Amino acid sequence: RHGEAESDDQVGIVTGLAWTQVGGEILTIESLVVPGKGNIKQTGKLGDVMKESVSAAFSYVKSRAAEFGIDQTLLEKNDIHVHLPEGAVPKDGPSAGGALTTSFVSVLTGIPVRHDVAMTGEVTLRGRILEIGGLKEKLLAALRAGIKTVLIPEANEKDLADVPENVRQALTIIPVKHMDDVLDVALTRQPQALPPGAVMDKNGEQTDTSVLSQSYQH
Amino acid sequence: RHGEAESDDQVGIVTGLAWTQVGGEILTIESLVVPGKGNIKQTGKLGDVMKESVSAAFSYVKSRAAEFGIDQTLLEKNDIHVHLPEGAVPKDGPSAGGALTTSFVSVLTGIPVRHDVAMTGEVTLRGRILEIGGLKEKLLAALRAGIKTVLIPEANEKDLADVPENVRQALTIIPVKHMDDVLDVALTRQPQALPPGAVMDKNGEQTDTSVLSQSYQH
Amino acid sequence: RHGEAESDDQVGIVTGLAWTQVGGEILTIESLVVPGKGNIKQTGKLGDVMKESVSAAFSYVKSRAAEFGIDQTLLEKNDIHVHLPEGAVPKDGPSAGGALTTSFVSVLTGIPVRHDVAMTGEVTLRGRILEIGGLKEKLLAALRAGIKTVLIPEANEKDLADVPENVRQALTIIPVKHMDDVLDVALTRQPQALPPGAVMDKNGEQTDTSVLSQSYQH
Amino acid sequence: RHGEAESDDQVGIVTGLAWTQVGGEILTIESLVVPGKGNIKQTGKLGDVMKESVSAAFSYVKSRAAEFGIDQTLLEKNDIHVHLPEGAVPKDGPSAGGALTTSFVSVLTGIPVRHDVAMTGEVTLRGRILEIGGLKEKLLAALRAGIKTVLIPEANEKDLADVPENVRQALTIIPVKHMDDVLDVALTRQPQALPPGAVMDKNGEQTDTSVLSQSYQH
Amino acid sequence: RHGEAESDDQVGIVTGLAWTQVGGEILTIESLVVPGKGNIKQTGKLGDVMKESVSAAFSYVKSRAAEFGIDQTLLEKNDIHVHLPEGAVPKDGPSAGGALTTSFVSVLTGIPVRHDVAMTGEVTLRGRILEIGGLKEKLLAALRAGIKTVLIPEANEKDLADVPENVRQALTIIPVKHMDDVLDVALTRQPQALPPGAVMDKNGEQTDTSVLSQSYQH
Amino acid sequence: RHGEAESDDQVGIVTGLAWTQVGGEILTIESLVVPGKGNIKQTGKLGDVMKESVSAAFSYVKSRAAEFGIDQTLLEKNDIHVHLPEGAVPKDGPSAGGALTTSFVSVLTGIPVRHDVAMTGEVTLRGRILEIGGLKEKLLAALRAGIKTVLIPEANEKDLADVPENVRQALTIIPVKHMDDVLDVALTRQPQALPPGAVMDKNGEQTDTSVLSQSYQH
Ligand SMILES: [Ca+2]
Ligand SMILES: [Ca+2]
Ligand SMILES: [Ca+2]
Ligand SMILES: [Ca+2]
Ligand SMILES: [Ca+2]
Ligand SMILES: [Ca+2]
Ligand SMILES: [Ca+2]
Ligand SMILES: [Ca+2]
Ligand SMILES: [Ca+2]
Ligand SMILES: [Ca+2]
Ligand SMILES: [Ca+2]
Ligand SMILES: [Ca+2]
Repeated sequence: RHGEAESDDQVGIVTGLAWTQVGGEILTIESLVVPGKGNIKQTGKLGDVMKESVSAAFSYVKSRAAEFGIDQTLLEKNDIHVHLPEGAVPKDGPSAGGALTTSFVSVLTGIPVRHDVAMTGEVTLRGRILEIGGLKEKLLAALRAGIKTVLIPEANEKDLADVPENVRQALTIIPVKHMDDVLDVALTRQPQALPPGAVMDKNGEQTDTSVLSQSYQH
Repeated sequence: RHGEAESDDQVGIVTGLAWTQVGGEILTIESLVVPGKGNIKQTGKLGDVMKESVSAAFSYVKSRAAEFGIDQTLLEKNDIHVHLPEGAVPKDGPSAGGALTTSFVSVLTGIPVRHDVAMTGEVTLRGRILEIGGLKEKLLAALRAGIKTVLIPEANEKDLADVPENVRQALTIIPVKHMDDVLDVALTRQPQALPPGAVMDKNGEQTDTSVLSQSYQH
Repeated sequence: RHGEAESDDQVGIVTGLAWTQVGGEILTIESLVVPGKGNIKQTGKLGDVMKESVSAAFSYVKSRAAEFGIDQTLLEKNDIHVHLPEGAVPKDGPSAGGALTTSFVSVLTGIPVRHDVAMTGEVTLRGRILEIGGLKEKLLAALRAGIKTVLIPEANEKDLADVPENVRQALTIIPVKHMDDVLDVALTRQPQALPPGAVMDKNGEQTDTSVLSQSYQH
Repeated sequence: RHGEAESDDQVGIVTGLAWTQVGGEILTIESLVVPGKGNIKQTGKLGDVMKESVSAAFSYVKSRAAEFGIDQTLLEKNDIHVHLPEGAVPKDGPSAGGALTTSFVSVLTGIPVRHDVAMTGEVTLRGRILEIGGLKEKLLAALRAGIKTVLIPEANEKDLADVPENVRQALTIIPVKHMDDVLDVALTRQPQALPPGAVMDKNGEQTDTSVLSQSYQH
Repeated sequence: RHGEAESDDQVGIVTGLAWTQVGGEILTIESLVVPGKGNIKQTGKLGDVMKESVSAAFSYVKSRAAEFGIDQTLLEKNDIHVHLPEGAVPKDGPSAGGALTTSFVSVLTGIPVRHDVAMTGEVTLRGRILEIGGLKEKLLAALRAGIKTVLIPEANEKDLADVPENVRQALTIIPVKHMDDVLDVALTRQPQALPPGAVMDKNGEQTDTSVLSQSYQH
Repeated sequence: RHGEAESDDQVGIVTGLAWTQVGGEILTIESLVVPGKGNIKQTGKLGDVMKESVSAAFSYVKSRAAEFGIDQTLLEKNDIHVHLPEGAVPKDGPSAGGALTTSFVSVLTGIPVRHDVAMTGEVTLRGRILEIGGLKEKLLAALRAGIKTVLIPEANEKDLADVPENVRQALTIIPVKHMDDVLDVALTRQPQALPPGAVMDKNGEQTDTSVLSQSYQH
């Protein structure tokens, strides 16, 4: 049922956390790979800031594709469609960045996401996790929905003091600094990098990824 | 006559149910396949949320094309045009998602839709059927129009208590959780999956659909 | 002179009927085929609903092209430009659907349209003719303009009771349910279907139109 | 000097006539052919109705290209840029249709336009000239600017009674019904049709223009 | 320093003159050639009228490319980026037309522009220089900035009576009627036309430029 | 932590300085190279003026690519994505031009940017650094964030008198006139120009860059 944690680990399905005027809420993120031309489609009444989060998350995953074992051809010959049910409810803000990124890595690698994990955090193009608002309400919503583990930005550790003791006890709360930390927990197994030299462009030629990989450090 | 159930099972024609300020209404959905490039055209004064429903429904069908027996070439060399008469009446909301999806599967497989079935329900990218509003008014409209069977979201079963006894008696009301349940009832026969290995891309090469199919589970 | 019936049967020229706050009016529709890429251009200060009517009419004609004897190559290598003089007068609404469809069939088949026929009626993607408003005013305008025969939606027969007896006597009023009924009257001769197997795509290969033709039934 | 008739017959330069709140005005129209892809660019602060006039005029010329001796390749490998000086003054309305069409025929055939001729009139896709407003003010502006001959819509002949006798005496006023009448007067020599069979598409294949030419009649 | 005349003759850098509510101002125009597809990019908070001036100036230069010695390949395989610093200050109006055109000719021919020359004047598609406003303020700004020579529209000679005697003495003021007059003064050397027959299209075939060149006369 | 200087020299990461109503702020700029077609994507709630700064900075870098040792193929087969965290905070103005340019040079050459350097300054298409506002607040923000060296426009040297003595002592403040001055300080090593004759276009043919290089002088 919508508003509850998923019951199985699934590919492309990630549980984010939203803050609304009437409290926190579960925010389900769904991604699909469909034949296309490397574009991203987004539906679910997303606001401008969240649309930019989607774009940045997609670029982040593309820039690290080799490291995640994602073949360039897969990216070039498909589109990703990301949808946030429920379609009539407006959603906005940057704090789903980490969840969106996780969904894209999952759907492009075929690795399922742990269904009992939720997360909140803005992501930068380098994968850094930035501070978000509404931590208390989001943790309460996670607990209500049956979530066991919540990933929060390290920069929000200071806000845990405001969270009721029983909530902190009931949840495993993991502060994270970088997308690597997020993926380590959220994916059911870790992506394997493509072997060196395996990066081919669409003409079947080996691509020099030295410039690309210089962007990966953090 | 518009506002009544169809008199024959037809390809691409699905009866949805709308809720308006003056009660429920029949919502006819028409889809056509025309030569094109894999795009979708939509007409009938659709609001932004319904346009996103169309886009999500189309991606859902594309992601499961092999399972529905829909050849990739058919998708690549044609457009789908979906139209909701009457063209001057604004329509919006996510609750036609299931009906739109059914229309697309029908028009792409050539399998007619049962003319005495109506349906309401938001659909997610995974095919899950989500709760809708205005159930009572929609069932009344279905009955008035001569519909025999109505598919409703399982999450709306709780609302049946508000529906007059005679309406519930006169209609076969089937709660559904997933598009598979919808198609099982609404199509006059079930789609046959393409045989394994039959998925060809436009260059006539076999496509590795392992990543795609991982998205299908639900 | 503008505002009067045409004096000759012409290709692509159809007389529609509009309803305005000051009464009914003749609405001339002009279509041209120009070299292009299968697009449609529309001019004449058309509102959003009428623009969607144009799009739906064009898809309807494309989906039935073989039946109308229209070669796929003609559609692919040309654009249609539809213009509604007078260019400074805003026009809107769905009720020119039948007239637009007739204009497109005419210009693509080269079959002239009867100059003494006018018509009104929304069209669905299946070619069904839907009810319109302002019947009385439209019939008065047709009579004033020298029209002999008017096609009206069957669903509007009920409104004929409001039309003055002398108008009904002076005009041949033909209720229609489907575009086929419209074309039977409006075209100076009937289109001939392409022979089976004659449908070629742009690579000169025969196209399997079985899915397409399943959409044609009504 | 701007606001006066041209002093030489030039290719692509046509004198239109505008009506403003403070009287009539000369409206110079300039067109250029530049290498491109068959598009049309328009500058000079044109309103939406005038932009549609440009589009319709361009389609008209394209549909009759063979008749005007305009090679298809010329249309496909070039753009037309039409500009209306002065760039800061807004211009709108459909009545420059005939002048725009004349400018396009001139620039595509290389035939100069008579510099002492001005014109006003909406044009339909079939080349019909429709009634315009502000005739008196426009004729006064033409006279002031040193124009000798003015083409007006035949439907405006009735308005000549309002034009001062001395203006009617000083100008040669020619009522026109169709673009053919306009071009007969405005061009310094008449276009020669391409020889039958000379119409090639961009692959060097002969094109069947029978459908196209059926649109030409009027 | 911004707001002063340039200290060297540079390629693509032209000094225009703007009129603001608080007096005249120097308007620096910068153009660059970058690899691309024949498009033009414009930045610097340009209003709609100035954007159209850019478009018209670019078409003018393209239509006379052979005369300026500009190879068609250079135009097809590059974009022009034109920028007007300071980026936060809105700029509008048609009077920079001549300066924009000069910048484009300079950057496409590699011929530097005289740094001690400023100019003002709208340009038509034929290269005619049209009257502008604010002459006195613009000349004062030019003088303040250290400019020696100012090109003004011939149609503005009448306004020189309002310009203080000392300003007229300190500046060389040259009335111009056509872009040819502008380029004769502003460029450090004159462009050389391509030899007849040297005009190649991108397939290496000789292009028939007879239609194009007919547009050049003025 | 966001709002502090970076702790390592990184590729594509530059520290700009923003002025807000409540004081100065650190503005982190992140760029990534992702496979694409030579386009630039920008996210982070950028206003129109800043978007134009991005476009101008990108053209500047492309026009000097050979000088920076950036291969044309790298530009043609990739996109740059530039993001300014935090995604919900609006950013605007031209003064990040120098920082954006530095980020693009860094990410395209793989040369890290010094983490203890911040900068402010509008850039022109020629690479000139123009005056900015809010110098005092920006320097205070740089100091607070742990920055050691700040590049400011030479035109702002006059404003240093308003900056507290202790701030001027604690920072190395370097006035700059041109992007070359910026890159000399900000990059950890200097780019090496491509050898003459090494500039290839995408067909593997040597490109004549003489026109391009004429634009480089300043
Ligand atoms: Ca909810
Ligand atoms: Ca890891
Ligand atoms: Ca109705
Ligand atoms: Ca089934
Ligand atoms: Ca009228
Ligand atoms: Ca028939
Ligand atoms: Ca004027
Ligand atoms: Ca003639
Ligand atoms: Ca200034
Ligand atoms: Ca000269
Ligand atoms: Ca902040
Ligand atoms: Ca250097």
